[in-house]
Amino acid sequence: MKLLRVGPPGQERPAVLDGAGNLREISGEIDGAFFASGGVARVRAALDRDELPVMEAAGLRIGPPVARPGKIVCIGLNYRDHAGETGAEPPAEPVVFMKAPSTVIGPYDEVLIPRGSVKTDWEVELAVVIGETARYVETHEEALAKVAGYTISNDVSEREFQLERGGQWDKGKSCETFNPLGPWLVTADEVPDPQDLGLRLWVDGEPYQNGSTKNMIFGVAEVVRYLSHFMVLEPGDVINTGTPAGVALGLPGTPYLRAGQVMELEIDGLGRQRQTVGQA
Amino acid sequence: MKLLRVGPPGQERPAVLDGAGNLREISGEIDGAFFASGGVARVRAALDRDELPVMEAAGLRIGPPVARPGKIVCIGLNYRDHAGETGAEPPAEPVVFMKAPSTVIGPYDEVLIPRGSVKTDWEVELAVVIGETARYVETHEEALAKVAGYTISNDVSEREFQLERGGQWDKGKSCETFNPLGPWLVTADEVPDPQDLGLRLWVDGEPYQNGSTKNMIFGVAEVVRYLSHFMVLEPGDVINTGTPAGVALGLPGTPYLRAGQVMELEIDGLGRQRQTVGQA
Repeated sequence: MKLLRVGPPGQERPAVLDGAGNLREISGEIDGAFFASGGVARVRAALDRDELPVMEAAGLRIGPPVARPGKIVCIGLNYRDHAGETGAEPPAEPVVFMKAPSTVIGPYDEVLIPRGSVKTDWEVELAVVIGETARYVETHEEALAKVAGYTISNDVSEREFQLERGGQWDKGKSCETFNPLGPWLVTADEVPDPQDLGLRLWVDGEPYQNGSTKNMIFGVAEVVRYLSHFMVLEPGDVINTGTPAGVALGLPGTPYLRAGQVMELEIDGLGRQRQTVGQA
Repeated sequence: MKLLRVGPPGQERPAVLDGAGNLREISGEIDGAFFASGGVARVRAALDRDELPVMEAAGLRIGPPVARPGKIVCIGLNYRDHAGETGAEPPAEPVVFMKAPSTVIGPYDEVLIPRGSVKTDWEVELAVVIGETARYVETHEEALAKVAGYTISNDVSEREFQLERGGQWDKGKSCETFNPLGPWLVTADEVPDPQDLGLRLWVDGEPYQNGSTKNMIFGVAEVVRYLSHFMVLEPGDVINTGTPAGVALGLPGTPYLRAGQVMELEIDGLGRQRQTVGQA
């Protein structure tokens, strides 16, 4: 199933995309409580029984597919080619940092370059949405059972703030609008192998990133298992699993984003995003 | 005013401590929406008009004084003496990292040593609770006007996870139970100078930390102003403003926490905390 949320920012209504391409209304909200209470199975059953009213979707904005996550955990340097382009060694264990949940916007919303920024960069990533509480998970099988589904994330990053302003990466990761998410939450049953997905990003039509989740250093199952030993993952939490090569930081001439440019992102089976770049 | 939340975990009810030391019931919840909608002024007016019923408080657990924050932002190495004991230079600008909001527990709840941990450490800190959205704040006066109030935070940290397991500090900061908060949210009007508060911490009755917010490198006003240029601070967000010297990491023999020990924390005018240490 493809779950999504449509409507103005802060007033999104949850929906499911049916087999005929229509949006169907869901009651409640797509959030931690939804996943924890078996919401996915409930929607699937209602859809199968044809109980969900068709939603008038024309002209509606698509918002992020999950309501404000409890946390966004990010994995750094998780593709060999990206670690190489940044000059870093491939990490021996996952590099973990956090992104403020308030950064989440819809997949077609405007991304703002922060005031004073000259190094705003893109990162197409496979995002994992947690469906069940994960605490000290032992096996990869158990870890994958905690995943509700997948979506596209643009882990927008300000490289000067991240790397040259003292200390920790988080400073360059949590600016407003820095996490476009969506368009859909594709439930895990429809992603048979999360380690076999192509992911691509263009700026102004120019292809910059073209990778595959095959090349992750730590796959989704290991990332979920590993993280669960350092923090409790809760339903509705989002994990950004890292980006392949091709970010501005690693390219000749470091072509960082400028206002007016357009980013497009795509992951196999998860749809597309498109953001215009503005100035805060 | 002193605002607090009492009752079992996840079922806390909001209250205010009146001049006679009684708890009075408040309707709703103490969270971002409460602050954003003028909740503090509303409670103050109702208290003045003697409209709030007395709450039977005997035996009730005290929970964290704000419901699940949207984010917890932490300032590292923000006291000269603490930077020195960790071997770090005093930072030229604030060091920023994040802590998962799911770490928040009440001021008397049990703190759990993570599985596999041998370096769990304490950090008494002045916590700032944001009352109004702060975005690109220019002046210190404006920054302080964004503060709803203050409370005590124990920024519990696992030093091996933080410093020896690859990459970023966040890995050692977000383990379950790692952020006791409370007992009260003391509204900003009752803290005339946040840069003149003594803060102390004991383990098993032994004094380990005894500092003053006078010795912060970046004071509360500058921290709020500075952060607002890297992220949007929202009502209900919490900022842990850093810890003075005396953490286990910097002490001879590095006396990290062991199950069965008791931490006590105190900040002038903000009350006391007491946590027993358990094992996850």
